[in-house]
Amino acid sequence: MSDKSILETFPNANPERDYQIEHTFPEFTSVCPKTGQPDFGTVVITYVPDQQCVELKSLKFYLNGYRNEGIFYEAITNKLLDDLVEACEPRRMSVVTRWTPRGGLSSVVTATYERGES
Amino acid sequence: MSDKSILETFPNANPERDYQIEHTFPEFTSVCPKTGQPDFGTVVITYVPDQQCVELKSLKFYLNGYRNEGIFYEAITNKLLDDLVEACEPRRMSVVTRWTPRGGLSSVVTATYERGES
Amino acid sequence: MSDKSILETFPNANPERDYQIEHTFPEFTSVCPKTGQPDFGTVVITYVPDQQCVELKSLKFYLNGYRNEGIFYEAITNKLLDDLVEACEPRRMSVVTRWTPRGGLSSVVTATYERGES
Amino acid sequence: MSDKSILETFPNANPERDYQIEHTFPEFTSVCPKTGQPDFGTVVITYVPDQQCVELKSLKFYLNGYRNEGIFYEAITNKLLDDLVEACEPRRMSVVTRWTPRGGLSSVVTATYERGES
Amino acid sequence: MSDKSILETFPNANPERDYQIEHTFPEFTSVCPKTGQPDFGTVVITYVPDQQCVELKSLKFYLNGYRNEGIFYEAITNKLLDDLVEACEPRRMSVVTRWTPRGGLSSVVTATYERGES
Amino acid sequence: MSDKSILETFPNANPERDYQIEHTFPEFTSVCPKTGQPDFGTVVITYVPDQQCVELKSLKFYLNGYRNEGIFYEAITNKLLDDLVEACEPRRMSVVTRWTPRGGLSSVVTATYERGES
Amino acid sequence: MSDKSILETFPNANPERDYQIEHTFPEFTSVCPKTGQPDFGTVVITYVPDQQCVELKSLKFYLNGYRNEGIFYEAITNKLLDDLVEACEPRRMSVVTRWTPRGGLSSVVTATYERGES
Amino acid sequence: MSDKSILETFPNANPERDYQIEHTFPEFTSVCPKTGQPDFGTVVITYVPDQQCVELKSLKFYLNGYRNEGIFYEAITNKLLDDLVEACEPRRMSVVTRWTPRGGLSSVVTATYERGES
Amino acid sequence: MSDKSILETFPNANPERDYQIEHTFPEFTSVCPKTGQPDFGTVVITYVPDQQCVELKSLKFYLNGYRNEGIFYEAITNKLLDDLVEACEPRRMSVVTRWTPRGGLSSVVTATYERGES
Amino acid sequence: MSDKSILETFPNANPERDYQIEHTFPEFTSVCPKTGQPDFGTVVITYVPDQQCVELKSLKFYLNGYRNEGIFYEAITNKLLDDLVEACEPRRMSVVTRWTPRGGLSSVVTATYERGES
Repeated sequence: MSDKSILETFPNANPERDYQIEHTFPEFTSVCPKTGQPDFGTVVITYVPDQQCVELKSLKFYLNGYRNEGIFYEAITNKLLDDLVEACEPRRMSVVTRWTPRGGLSSVVTATYERGES
Repeated sequence: MSDKSILETFPNANPERDYQIEHTFPEFTSVCPKTGQPDFGTVVITYVPDQQCVELKSLKFYLNGYRNEGIFYEAITNKLLDDLVEACEPRRMSVVTRWTPRGGLSSVVTATYERGES
Repeated sequence: MSDKSILETFPNANPERDYQIEHTFPEFTSVCPKTGQPDFGTVVITYVPDQQCVELKSLKFYLNGYRNEGIFYEAITNKLLDDLVEACEPRRMSVVTRWTPRGGLSSVVTATYERGES
Repeated sequence: MSDKSILETFPNANPERDYQIEHTFPEFTSVCPKTGQPDFGTVVITYVPDQQCVELKSLKFYLNGYRNEGIFYEAITNKLLDDLVEACEPRRMSVVTRWTPRGGLSSVVTATYERGES
Repeated sequence: MSDKSILETFPNANPERDYQIEHTFPEFTSVCPKTGQPDFGTVVITYVPDQQCVELKSLKFYLNGYRNEGIFYEAITNKLLDDLVEACEPRRMSVVTRWTPRGGLSSVVTATYERGES
Repeated sequence: MSDKSILETFPNANPERDYQIEHTFPEFTSVCPKTGQPDFGTVVITYVPDQQCVELKSLKFYLNGYRNEGIFYEAITNKLLDDLVEACEPRRMSVVTRWTPRGGLSSVVTATYERGES
Repeated sequence: MSDKSILETFPNANPERDYQIEHTFPEFTSVCPKTGQPDFGTVVITYVPDQQCVELKSLKFYLNGYRNEGIFYEAITNKLLDDLVEACEPRRMSVVTRWTPRGGLSSVVTATYERGES
Repeated sequence: MSDKSILETFPNANPERDYQIEHTFPEFTSVCPKTGQPDFGTVVITYVPDQQCVELKSLKFYLNGYRNEGIFYEAITNKLLDDLVEACEPRRMSVVTRWTPRGGLSSVVTATYERGES
Repeated sequence: MSDKSILETFPNANPERDYQIEHTFPEFTSVCPKTGQPDFGTVVITYVPDQQCVELKSLKFYLNGYRNEGIFYEAITNKLLDDLVEACEPRRMSVVTRWTPRGGLSSVVTATYERGES
Repeated sequence: MSDKSILETFPNANPERDYQIEHTFPEFTSVCPKTGQPDFGTVVITYVPDQQCVELKSLKFYLNGYRNEGIFYEAITNKLLDDLVEACEPRRMSVVTRWTPRGGLSSVVTATYERGES
């Protein structure tokens, strides 16, 4: 599994204000654990930083770390959210993954974190 | 009628979180019960899983099972919702069907299920 | 004026559930009562059925019945809504008409019915 | 049938040069002679004028004259070309008609005239 | 300045119902008061009529009346709203103006009127 | 296999002129002979008629006849061309089939007939 | 009529090479000589310079000079070509004017100059 | 850093009404402080003016002032908002910056000011 | 390097006719030999078969075989062409690879084979 | 002026075949020598390599070298072509530059080199 310790952060210079950062990565790829065939998707990460922001280059390396991992759509989406929340402890964050069609079916998975909710 | 027992599910690995899954199938086809001519549409299924998620391959086979069935737009949409709710018992689900034009008229039907509502 | 008695309905098989049906007709045409020149528009009808649904073929014939009628944008939109509400007695309905440009100006008219409102 | 004598022309002010004029009319409508149902299409007329250009307002009235005529796609296209060639005697002309779908099938018909060809 | 007395209205035939009319005019042009160079924009007028509707031909002439007027984006938008509200006394109205780029910057101005608000 | 005798023709009213007819059918479906799963594609037929034109309703029924046939992309395209050439004996004809993605790969097959070529 | 003496040129720094320059002006406006109503269009000028190139700011002022002129589509297109050829004496030039719809009809006029042709 | 004293304002002629002004600048460029390579983005400024509006030409010069500055996405967005709020003291303002992809990742940063909030 | 022996073919059922087959694969990925970072592209293969056609499933596996190979854009394109020509010995073939942007630059490489040319 | 000695090349591994390479750079910027204001454009370089290919990273640095140079559209396009031809001595090359609008006018300049032509 991609190593979440790769994720780096830098101090948020404007913590007094709630503002939103969105990163879109159309080059996500992993492997279907059932068929062993590659999956391709776009990952959209949206968050309101608290004390730390996610550093972009480390985010790219972290996302590239799934390249040869066998993992389901639903599991990836929740794991991305968990790892990123742990790394930068945002006020709010959502992760959306949009997948290219397989057997005619295309999928989108959306998971959301709100600080203070269980 | 397509056999709903074809639908398989797998355990939701993140039941502690409300997250959303959307599957889009642009290759739905059935037969108009009046004219016997084929109908073509896109089916969009969106749900928040509880303990079970819908397995994709079985979903495809289930949807393909309507290929030679004579059934109206409104009836299909409600039946898809009923069968899928029964199969995976989600917290919320909606089914949208968008149909190619017939006689210049194109149609969209939207049905929604919310757990706990009648 | 197009004869609203052309409109046929069929029983709603799922009256226990509020679900939405949308029909789009991009081939509407009538005649400008001022200039005698043809008008062209798209009609979008969206409704939540109660006991009856609008039958599609009769809807097409009804809409085609305006082909040689002289009638203003605003009047058509309200009349379509009135006739369709009378025909199928829905829980909610809206009619949107979008018109191609005349003298550089293009228009959209939207009228809405909610059961129980005056 | 629409009366071709409606078509008016005006003298080409630049007959010494081969230049091209294209008129696009997305609001053409006629009636299917088989079913009696309306057809809708876009007409594109492209020509190199000789001594006369087609006057736009008369062209519009001429095209609107097909509104209640029963005529097939292929026949309309050839008749438009014949009438317009007769009216303005161009050096070259083409007529393209693009029709909205019927029964899922949409059609385009293209006819071309070159002066001096039989 | 364009003469607002050009604006004509006609009686709303359905004053018992709140419905919405939208007119889009992509051919608006005026002159920059600073540089004397022309400005080009799209005007979108959306309103809920009360007793009167705006007549389309007079609206076009009124909008064309700005062709050689020197006036800023913000001022035009507010003046259009004021004049149109005065002319037809609607229940609600908004005016949006979208302007082509100048020096790389493109602008949109939106003003709204709600009856009964100051 | 779809029965080519379903195809009907009608006399070309303008055989003195080479003109082109194009029919696009985005609702073609057949079955993959290997997997038994449905294939979906768009068929574009373009031809210059000689003495006969293809009748549209019969073309639709003919194309719908492949619905439950197991046949490869390349074979369908060549068979459509052969059957249509035999039915209407055109001066020229091409058939293009565009297929929705399977396993990430989408395909287009193009076959052409020119009278007098072997 | 817009004064062609406004057009300025500057020396082509690469006359040893045939290369192409294209300027697109989507903000052209003039007045219809019949109705007095404004026309709007996009002008595309494409040329291979010889010893002189057209200066952009002067081109803009020249094109803006038609703002209140009454002139037909065909005449404008040929006059733009004549004036620009006279101003910069190019090796080749074409002028294309695309006009917004009037009465549902939209037009494109294309004129071309090739040095050494009559 | 770009000098905020460049920003000029002019009096809002309609301070009695809350209306919205949006300026979009797709030609923003600065320099990545890490790599020294240029960044490119679109800046969208939306605000409800109070007593002053931002003058467009000075806004353009102010934005161009970042051309050779090394500054991060998040810092630019917050600084643009701070400088513009200080310059025109609006009732509300938001600044959105959308950046072209770097290493496959594209970013959007959104910051918002509401008068009276800390 | 991906093993070209994976590529399978099947006999062309219509070798008497020159017809064209195009396969588009938007999910190609390999690794940059300089940086070790992944590259992403779309591969378009177009050919006129002779006695053999490329089998789709084996083509997919062959293309997926580059997933972890370090290879430049130009080299991949030429190697794909060489391997595919060797596998199915077509009459003509072209391979186009379109790559997502790196450092702001996006690339397309096109290589063509014609039987009988050196 | 950007230093052409920055441009690096690498040996073409397939010189026996004429194949085409296209690089698109939508992030080109320079400065207008008249106004001192920045210009923005997209550069498209297409060539058939002989013994050398252009190295991508050096191409990016070379193009970024124009960032603060004052130079006209026509001059840039010809200089890019001259520098790139000198650097990699291709069989054929074209350079196209597309510029964002200034004063409503947007421009495209295209220059082409063919080996053996003067």
